[in-house]
Amino acid sequence: MASEFDIIDGITRRFDTPDGVSLGIGDDAAVLEDGRFNLVTTDMLVEEVHFRSDWCSPADIGWRALTASLSDIAAMGGRCGPYVANVAMTGEEQGFVDGILDGLESAAEMAGSAVSTVPIGGDLTGSRGPSVVSITLLGESLANGPILRSGAIPGDHIVVTGQPGRAAAGLAILRETLELKGDLDDEPLVEAYRRPVARCDIGGLLGETVGAHSLIDVSDGLRADLGHILDASGVGARLDWQALPLDDALAELPLTDDELRRDYVLRGGEDFELLMTLDDRQWSELKALELDVGLHRIGTVLPDEGVVEWTGLPDGIEPGSRGGWDHFRPRSG
Amino acid sequence: MASEFDIIDGITRRFDTPDGVSLGIGDDAAVLEDGRFNLVTTDMLVEEVHFRSDWCSPADIGWRALTASLSDIAAMGGRCGPYVANVAMTGEEQGFVDGILDGLESAAEMAGSAVSTVPIGGDLTGSRGPSVVSITLLGESLANGPILRSGAIPGDHIVVTGQPGRAAAGLAILRETLELKGDLDDEPLVEAYRRPVARCDIGGLLGETVGAHSLIDVSDGLRADLGHILDASGVGARLDWQALPLDDALAELPLTDDELRRDYVLRGGEDFELLMTLDDRQWSELKALELDVGLHRIGTVLPDEGVVEWTGLPDGIEPGSRGGWDHFRPRSG
Repeated sequence: MASEFDIIDGITRRFDTPDGVSLGIGDDAAVLEDGRFNLVTTDMLVEEVHFRSDWCSPADIGWRALTASLSDIAAMGGRCGPYVANVAMTGEEQGFVDGILDGLESAAEMAGSAVSTVPIGGDLTGSRGPSVVSITLLGESLANGPILRSGAIPGDHIVVTGQPGRAAAGLAILRETLELKGDLDDEPLVEAYRRPVARCDIGGLLGETVGAHSLIDVSDGLRADLGHILDASGVGARLDWQALPLDDALAELPLTDDELRRDYVLRGGEDFELLMTLDDRQWSELKALELDVGLHRIGTVLPDEGVVEWTGLPDGIEPGSRGGWDHFRPRSG
Repeated sequence: MASEFDIIDGITRRFDTPDGVSLGIGDDAAVLEDGRFNLVTTDMLVEEVHFRSDWCSPADIGWRALTASLSDIAAMGGRCGPYVANVAMTGEEQGFVDGILDGLESAAEMAGSAVSTVPIGGDLTGSRGPSVVSITLLGESLANGPILRSGAIPGDHIVVTGQPGRAAAGLAILRETLELKGDLDDEPLVEAYRRPVARCDIGGLLGETVGAHSLIDVSDGLRADLGHILDASGVGARLDWQALPLDDALAELPLTDDELRRDYVLRGGEDFELLMTLDDRQWSELKALELDVGLHRIGTVLPDEGVVEWTGLPDGIEPGSRGGWDHFRPRSG
């Protein structure tokens, strides 16, 4: 069976980028040549693949669907605009639609984009099968944007925001793969899975003032998404194992720090943290902003294409290469 | 249970049209204030609701999914641009994706838009449930566009292209509700269901040179979609029963002409014919182009809001009011 990435490669080879489009398939969003809303990104969430209705309310589902797209625009250093939404649903429609809309609205509000990020079209349909939410979000490039995956330069600092791995740990708790501590509804990791927050503020700062050489959101997993930057930029990386962040919520899990780094921080997708490469000036400016969100310098870009070196790797730990989510592997069941 | 239209009304009331957007929910496409690709439309096809895999090949599914959106852009008098596509699939992935892509490509080619109407992004996912294809298509307004539903003026000629009802009759043949004549694969009505052709050429002519006061595509059914024009324009209509077209393929079905008009021509969706209202000059110019496609003048716009009168209606025939497809009612089973 071909992987999702192989299939997408084939599609990219099959179609030329059309007139009026600067950048087609292959980054976090497509880029149009003109117009205020020159960024286009799309995501689809399918029940039993991306969510389970007994683990997520309709509002959680709407939230997560829009957040995936908000994060893609953030990962271009852009500002989020309006969207179209397609919903296929089973069961009691009005309540489901209202819940989805509540989630869409809350996610836009949390992203600081409640006025501009509203639906301007869509399609509603019944379905006998799983519920599906498909979002196509428009966005605006800012002064330094769009910031692509392909701009990493040897010597760049590799920086990730926040705490990758929280959402994956939350999912593992729901699956009962990880032991639950305390009440499920108060569990911050479960909340991170149900209501991940796109880093629209940081994406906007990078696009508007600070700049970045390359930028991606962590949706497939930190290691896999770093791989996308390295491939697109034709560079390698030296990574510092000990610099991989571990916040308090993760550190409370019944795993060693090194197991957490290997299994969650490096492989967990859908926290929608931002991963970037920055030169000295950009890194200094970003740090000087004293954001609420943690910024973790986890390594340096190397000139050697495809080479990934580790420093500080403990004996007996194999960080893996490109492990991440494969979207053909149901992950919610 | 609320209807699809009630739910969409609620959504429209809930969200304001954002800055940078001229027209949000409610027409065939949203309209952005600037940019070459200022039209945005989206459609989702769900297995067991919009298609059945034993009746449609993956290529048919791809074709029908894109055609729904091509038709929406045609119905704004626009020219079709690039699109993003989300696909959720069960079973053997590579063959399914290749088939979908073949269908997408053929539909764009048939619409005369093979160079510009190509994918610029998308999402592929496995699914345990029904296959789903979701398309968001961009388009360009032309000189007279965008042509909305809301521009009908009393005295306008009401004109429909081609033969509405063919696709619905083809579906009835597949369902064995209508008697099959000849081989299924050669049956033109079944082909009309599997491979409907969006009227991109006529939409483009209206948008570029001829103009039209109002325009919609027949996706819910001629009577229902005329209702959308009348509602949006605040007008009524006098319709001529005998002018409702019946082409040879329909006339061969084991139903009387009046039954065909009532059950298929007025109610059949998804042929993607265009329905428009034109003033005398526009109607003369359009006829003078001597297009290959039939143009049928089926009535006149009246000033009386909501009034629909019939002339030539035979005794005992009840044309119905707003009957059409309800997208919550599975129609493929």
